Amino acid sequence: MTEKDARLASDVLVTTDLWGVHTHGTKLLRLYLKRMRAGGLKAQGVPHVIKEGPAWAVLDGDNALGMVSACRAMEVAVAKARGAGIGFVSVRNGCHFGAAGYYAQLAVKHDMVGLAMGNADANMTVPGGRGKIVGNNPLAYAAPAGEERPLMLDMALSTVAAGKINAAAEAGKPIPDTWIAGEDGLPTTDPSLYPAHACLMPMAGHKGYGLALMVETFSALVSGAKMLADIVSWNVGPISEPTGHGYAFVAMDVGAMLPIADFKKRMDEMIRRIRGSALAKGSDRIYLPGEIETEKLKAALSAGMNLPDDVRDALRGLAGDVGISVGWL
Amino acid sequence: MTEKDARLASDVLVTTDLWGVHTHGTKLLRLYLKRMRAGGLKAQGVPHVIKEGPAWAVLDGDNALGMVSACRAMEVAVAKARGAGIGFVSVRNGCHFGAAGYYAQLAVKHDMVGLAMGNADANMTVPGGRGKIVGNNPLAYAAPAGEERPLMLDMALSTVAAGKINAAAEAGKPIPDTWIAGEDGLPTTDPSLYPAHACLMPMAGHKGYGLALMVETFSALVSGAKMLADIVSWNVGPISEPTGHGYAFVAMDVGAMLPIADFKKRMDEMIRRIRGSALAKGSDRIYLPGEIETEKLKAALSAGMNLPDDVRDALRGLAGDVGISVGWL
Repeated sequence: MTEKDARLASDVLVTTDLWGVHTHGTKLLRLYLKRMRAGGLKAQGVPHVIKEGPAWAVLDGDNALGMVSACRAMEVAVAKARGAGIGFVSVRNGCHFGAAGYYAQLAVKHDMVGLAMGNADANMTVPGGRGKIVGNNPLAYAAPAGEERPLMLDMALSTVAAGKINAAAEAGKPIPDTWIAGEDGLPTTDPSLYPAHACLMPMAGHKGYGLALMVETFSALVSGAKMLADIVSWNVGPISEPTGHGYAFVAMDVGAMLPIADFKKRMDEMIRRIRGSALAKGSDRIYLPGEIETEKLKAALSAGMNLPDDVRDALRGLAGDVGISVGWL
Repeated sequence: MTEKDARLASDVLVTTDLWGVHTHGTKLLRLYLKRMRAGGLKAQGVPHVIKEGPAWAVLDGDNALGMVSACRAMEVAVAKARGAGIGFVSVRNGCHFGAAGYYAQLAVKHDMVGLAMGNADANMTVPGGRGKIVGNNPLAYAAPAGEERPLMLDMALSTVAAGKINAAAEAGKPIPDTWIAGEDGLPTTDPSLYPAHACLMPMAGHKGYGLALMVETFSALVSGAKMLADIVSWNVGPISEPTGHGYAFVAMDVGAMLPIADFKKRMDEMIRRIRGSALAKGSDRIYLPGEIETEKLKAALSAGMNLPDDVRDALRGLAGDVGISVGWL
């Protein structure tokens, strides 16, 4: 990879760890590298615009590392928004891009509102169906504030992430009946069935299902990326095959629509009113979307952080794969 | 009202009834008219663009009927998308606009993808808080297909609509603990507490909460509309005061990004693959988003439909208010 692309990918993954979202941080690098060496990712891939208009573009990700194509795409969306007020970019030939929220907040650095979404390999059932039909497609949003921290929401469209189910299985505890469906398509409370004999359920039933198809439309149907079960799983699929993910990004230059200072003042007001609301019994605080992540980042930058065992293991394994000594890890 | 605006509002409300969504159909007209006569809505309001760019506009809804300002705004979004590929329109001085899905599918009539959203008077709590903090803001999406029917998702960001809670209360049945929170901010399974002593909970916890703030940002913070608890409730608030709702609409001219026939073929493929998936035990069909509504519409247009009692009552009351004889109703 070029040094520039490597640094960019580092920033995405390390920032994600700093947010405390270790499932999507540097832990992923080992598998990305394996895929790169096997041909399923192109180290020298150059994402490029294949069609564009005043406020939009379609990019070919050239099967580069997901962080590389996603950052490039948001850059184009921001540039389009600078001229037109709003920019929409859809990408094909992408791969797993980590935490969608990272790309949404790239727009915030330009005083813009950002949206980031992508499709995932099919891992979720839909109401009335059984088996893996659609991905638990990620959807993220970020908006700048004034004195307050920016808002950032980063979510997948399943009820919960796989990690929570695995944790319950390890603890031998039953799970709510809205998390996974068994082989008959019906909800089950037995986490040990996942992933071999169960799949994820959409959050909020038909609502999460419908939103997943919205993300699929913007990410894959517009760009020509793979859709639904055609997407190769980035972590358990064949590593020599491109995954074919699609993404979509929106940047909105709110400063064109009203003075940016006014927008930020209004954001501050919304944030403060919500934070200052009456608390539920037993609650000591109302968090705004993204607040947990930015506080963890701040704490980690000043005091360092402990990486969870699974992240250390992955990094040690990666170091072994590439012949680097990491006795300090 | 002008005849044109009256016909337009009729089409929105009657179409919504034809979809079977009677909570948002002609039933609403009686309260809208009361509000109009009391000064809380302007019969002669003329929604107009107050600022615009190549791919966006901000509209003042002039406190016209919500259907009038929302249709006008989506019209502007479609016109912007025709030139720029995508059009975003944010609206202030709106009112309750009924079913968001109606406006999303207006874009589909132009072979475009549509998004429609708006803020609602605060009726939902947020994680960690108690009381009414943010609205269960509606969010809708629609996309054209080829031989298949368009997709349409129309949802509110609470777990369920108030109607379901009231129905459980009438039946004397407990509800799941994800629907409403009591005065202490904690979930309750007693539907009789709603609405006097309980408020709605966001769908999927922090995800629905975060999406509600996203809708608030696009609808109100950009346009300068009222936000959060400042919005006057269109049905239980003072009828002489403007409600101050905000909305936002997006139209996307996918035909600029790829040949529209290709896009529609891909939509058909996605729809058919999902519909053809294996069924859950006991399920006889997988519905696509919007399919129930379009089938009900088709059936109603060919065979007529029975209006529920509450809709008839509202229409009879309205007829009385304006001195029209409706012996046939």
